[in-house]
Amino acid sequence: MGIVLGANQYGKAEVRLVHVDRSAPQHVLTDLNVSTHLRGAFDATYLTGDNSSVLATDTQKNTVYAFARQFGVGEPEEFALRLGRHFVQSQEAVTGAQIEIDQLPWTRVGDHSFSRPGGERRTTSVTFDGSSAWVVSGLTDLVVLNTTGSEFHGFPRDEYTTLPETTDRILATSVTARWRYSSLDLDFGALFTGIRSRMLETFASTHSLALQQTLYAMGSAVLEDFAEVAEVRLSMPNKHHYLADLTPFGLDNPNQVFIAGDRPYGLIEGQVLREEAPDAGSAWQFVPGFA
Amino acid sequence: MGIVLGANQYGKAEVRLVHVDRSAPQHVLTDLNVSTHLRGAFDATYLTGDNSSVLATDTQKNTVYAFARQFGVGEPEEFALRLGRHFVQSQEAVTGAQIEIDQLPWTRVGDHSFSRPGGERRTTSVTFDGSSAWVVSGLTDLVVLNTTGSEFHGFPRDEYTTLPETTDRILATSVTARWRYSSLDLDFGALFTGIRSRMLETFASTHSLALQQTLYAMGSAVLEDFAEVAEVRLSMPNKHHYLADLTPFGLDNPNQVFIAGDRPYGLIEGQVLREEAPDAGSAWQFVPGFA
Amino acid sequence: MGIVLGANQYGKAEVRLVHVDRSAPQHVLTDLNVSTHLRGAFDATYLTGDNSSVLATDTQKNTVYAFARQFGVGEPEEFALRLGRHFVQSQEAVTGAQIEIDQLPWTRVGDHSFSRPGGERRTTSVTFDGSSAWVVSGLTDLVVLNTTGSEFHGFPRDEYTTLPETTDRILATSVTARWRYSSLDLDFGALFTGIRSRMLETFASTHSLALQQTLYAMGSAVLEDFAEVAEVRLSMPNKHHYLADLTPFGLDNPNQVFIAGDRPYGLIEGQVLREEAPDAGSAWQFVPGFA
Amino acid sequence: MGIVLGANQYGKAEVRLVHVDRSAPQHVLTDLNVSTHLRGAFDATYLTGDNSSVLATDTQKNTVYAFARQFGVGEPEEFALRLGRHFVQSQEAVTGAQIEIDQLPWTRVGDHSFSRPGGERRTTSVTFDGSSAWVVSGLTDLVVLNTTGSEFHGFPRDEYTTLPETTDRILATSVTARWRYSSLDLDFGALFTGIRSRMLETFASTHSLALQQTLYAMGSAVLEDFAEVAEVRLSMPNKHHYLADLTPFGLDNPNQVFIAGDRPYGLIEGQVLREEAPDAGSAWQFVPGFA
Repeated sequence: MGIVLGANQYGKAEVRLVHVDRSAPQHVLTDLNVSTHLRGAFDATYLTGDNSSVLATDTQKNTVYAFARQFGVGEPEEFALRLGRHFVQSQEAVTGAQIEIDQLPWTRVGDHSFSRPGGERRTTSVTFDGSSAWVVSGLTDLVVLNTTGSEFHGFPRDEYTTLPETTDRILATSVTARWRYSSLDLDFGALFTGIRSRMLETFASTHSLALQQTLYAMGSAVLEDFAEVAEVRLSMPNKHHYLADLTPFGLDNPNQVFIAGDRPYGLIEGQVLREEAPDAGSAWQFVPGFA
Repeated sequence: MGIVLGANQYGKAEVRLVHVDRSAPQHVLTDLNVSTHLRGAFDATYLTGDNSSVLATDTQKNTVYAFARQFGVGEPEEFALRLGRHFVQSQEAVTGAQIEIDQLPWTRVGDHSFSRPGGERRTTSVTFDGSSAWVVSGLTDLVVLNTTGSEFHGFPRDEYTTLPETTDRILATSVTARWRYSSLDLDFGALFTGIRSRMLETFASTHSLALQQTLYAMGSAVLEDFAEVAEVRLSMPNKHHYLADLTPFGLDNPNQVFIAGDRPYGLIEGQVLREEAPDAGSAWQFVPGFA
Repeated sequence: MGIVLGANQYGKAEVRLVHVDRSAPQHVLTDLNVSTHLRGAFDATYLTGDNSSVLATDTQKNTVYAFARQFGVGEPEEFALRLGRHFVQSQEAVTGAQIEIDQLPWTRVGDHSFSRPGGERRTTSVTFDGSSAWVVSGLTDLVVLNTTGSEFHGFPRDEYTTLPETTDRILATSVTARWRYSSLDLDFGALFTGIRSRMLETFASTHSLALQQTLYAMGSAVLEDFAEVAEVRLSMPNKHHYLADLTPFGLDNPNQVFIAGDRPYGLIEGQVLREEAPDAGSAWQFVPGFA
Repeated sequence: MGIVLGANQYGKAEVRLVHVDRSAPQHVLTDLNVSTHLRGAFDATYLTGDNSSVLATDTQKNTVYAFARQFGVGEPEEFALRLGRHFVQSQEAVTGAQIEIDQLPWTRVGDHSFSRPGGERRTTSVTFDGSSAWVVSGLTDLVVLNTTGSEFHGFPRDEYTTLPETTDRILATSVTARWRYSSLDLDFGALFTGIRSRMLETFASTHSLALQQTLYAMGSAVLEDFAEVAEVRLSMPNKHHYLADLTPFGLDNPNQVFIAGDRPYGLIEGQVLREEAPDAGSAWQFVPGFA
């Protein structure tokens, strides 16, 4: 037949784990959405339904909850590394694992009380191939906007171009960023906080001639300040704000009233990396939108 | 035939208005989702397609943008009152208007830069019938959680009851609240901030024997502290957090590891009001879930 | 204090029940999303957390699954009536119940195989107050479009009106309809099929001068043909399709190329009823958007 | 610094195009969601904001609408090929383009009337690098379920395994499939219909010992029957249906009453290909979840 099985993985997606550390009067709340993906010698189940090597996805889920109790959670990167190593080392057929974790942020409003701002999430995707591990961390849905300091002009005009040039527009985007660390023994929590701040600050302070320029500035600022990061990949929709045309009503509109558009939107996707960055191996395989 | 047209309204939903006040070096950003609903003598368009009284929904949208330029936006309640009065007073056929506004919050990160936490929104629904106006303000998607201080026991047990009693559970909900003001000439911004704080604080500090008790405590705390409020309506899903059963793995679980459930969820809906509250008129008509 | 508890209800929302009838070689699949809401003398739980009258929402969920096994499911209206009566008749504190069911449609592709078209759902909301019951059935997300046969002109023009008149536009909407039956002992399945067809056919065949006219035509067609229906309430967004302006590219556009808009959209909400319709009691209370 | 720009692309996402062919009394409706992505020598805009090579995303959007008028739409693959070639051949800086199109299906209910089943969409992703082109077509959100003919047993049991073995379970999934064609001059519409049918039929007729086995069967059936297809990639969540435990109520449950779970879910992702398949080039780059 000449038909073969190619790349594949399987696992349990979106295991919703909430952990409460009650060891101090001020409780610590960790809220994670964990997905486990296993890679290895699984041809038999695809070809004949022989499951003798297929660790059930239900077992993977149980492992997530049991590990949270046995070892605590800590930073999502640490938890993911522990899970990934466990699956590869305890199951002969499993030669690789990719653990993806989204962390839902909660804001403290009391010793035992929290509120959850929606939207933004901290993410990590950890890949372990039996010997090496890669940690790709990031954030998603960081929605930001500058009311000024953004221009767009000098672009080519062909027969389908109608967009006027502008020297002052609203720039808004929802940042999805993923950065690959060069090593594993890091203070992931502090790094996340620092990298997020650096990106936010760079977005705010960059006078932008193109969203691409802002994207590159954000990525290179992270690489400049954080030696632990090998590369940054960013996906940034240009959330258009159209200046409302009020001339039919005898009104001017000096950049004050805007129509926030839904679709379509520009979409800028780019990678910023060190020339000497270590190889990414399979760290990005199957990672939605960034492979 | 004996077939007649009953209650009806029409309008433009989800007009996305972003307003930038540039009068000071620190820009002020207001981001609204505005829906206009008109009520009146519209039988002709339903019965014969005669549109001579039907102010186009496109015109309603234009009015939103033009008013933002002409008068500024201010508090959403003020903007809604202005719009509602305009439609009723300028169009003979329009005898009532209901203006609903959701405000998307933005956090300042610089003079001209903002980030937007997702989720929670401030809401208002203003109804004007030609002589009286009602302002129903609120918030939606305020997600909160207490890690302790919540019990549930003493409930009846019939032949379908399996739920064990508990004296310590996680209590989590996503609050949708709407409160009706008794008058119109109010400092709506300060009131919103105060009422939101009072509800959040009450959620955190109430030792809860039932989510119903928490709901009532939140509503009555608002009524006690804010004389301007006539009634509060709350819809609070009980976002269940199930204690993970780790006994098959030889582990205990002293209220530390939880499974966050999606569906089903409990749903508690209730109204707390002053006995002497002024009549609500048509303020709640067509308001989703609260009529 | 003069603060009192007003209207309230509680229950379990979105109980996901799938039932397979295997009594014949061709299996019958029923997929429901069931929400139960109980009303009654629950002041104690709100005021003091006394739960002695509060049938746990977990018990309500169990009842849904147990009833599916004991009695089968049948039409969603029948299942809802059985559940509603059970809660009111078995619990002294429960004086009323509202059971809402959404049915997810599946298409047969084999004796034991099915595929599920997304989107549209059949709905029912059954209210029982201890003596009387009301059945409000309907559908949601029926997305329809006419490529011609729709005009819009003759509307008033004020200083904010820019919309041109048109004698040929695309008319598209997503119908949410709810109709109240006059009695309870009906062939609900056949009626649903018939009413849905009648509405679809009326949408297609009505030459429309306004979406309001189409709405009324759909509602009155149902009342004319189905004596069992007392009233129909419809919510129909006008899903705008904007004619693309291709003149900058030297192209005409004779109603061929359209931009499908997301937001804003027109929103038409109306009720069509028999003059002699029996009283609705509390049938519509708490029903989102239709009260 | 040693910091460089890596892989990148930019474009306009989700251009909502609706085309009506009125050349016959029975109108033909085509409803597309088009995203354009351009690749090439864009370093200047990232590094300095020099846009002299950056064809505006607004222009890309205009091109989509203008092309629909100039050339009609036809099959989405043809439309995507035309767009991709245009951007690469008309812009010196553009060396590659990836055009993604989702088609929203409409069902005819009259000469000029249509209804839209939600959910499932036909997709295509066309990549052109200046000389070669690749067409990756597919579908998403095809939700299917078998009420019997699915087993799961023989899997390894470690200390975290609690799942019982089963010889009869519900198997449900939402299929996302993408297949790469070996050539470009094909009857894409007929192929889509044929491939979709073959996959649906294979899902229904495969006695399944693992969802992996069903996935492989679906992919290889397509390769066996359609010589035009080089490889198939499938992503299939295992939408768990849990047998309700009714024993506390004295009831058995012979595979009749199920709880449809939301999260977590199993997730099986795999590729089935011909050994002699032509090289994929950059066809899968940036394609979410399949790279």
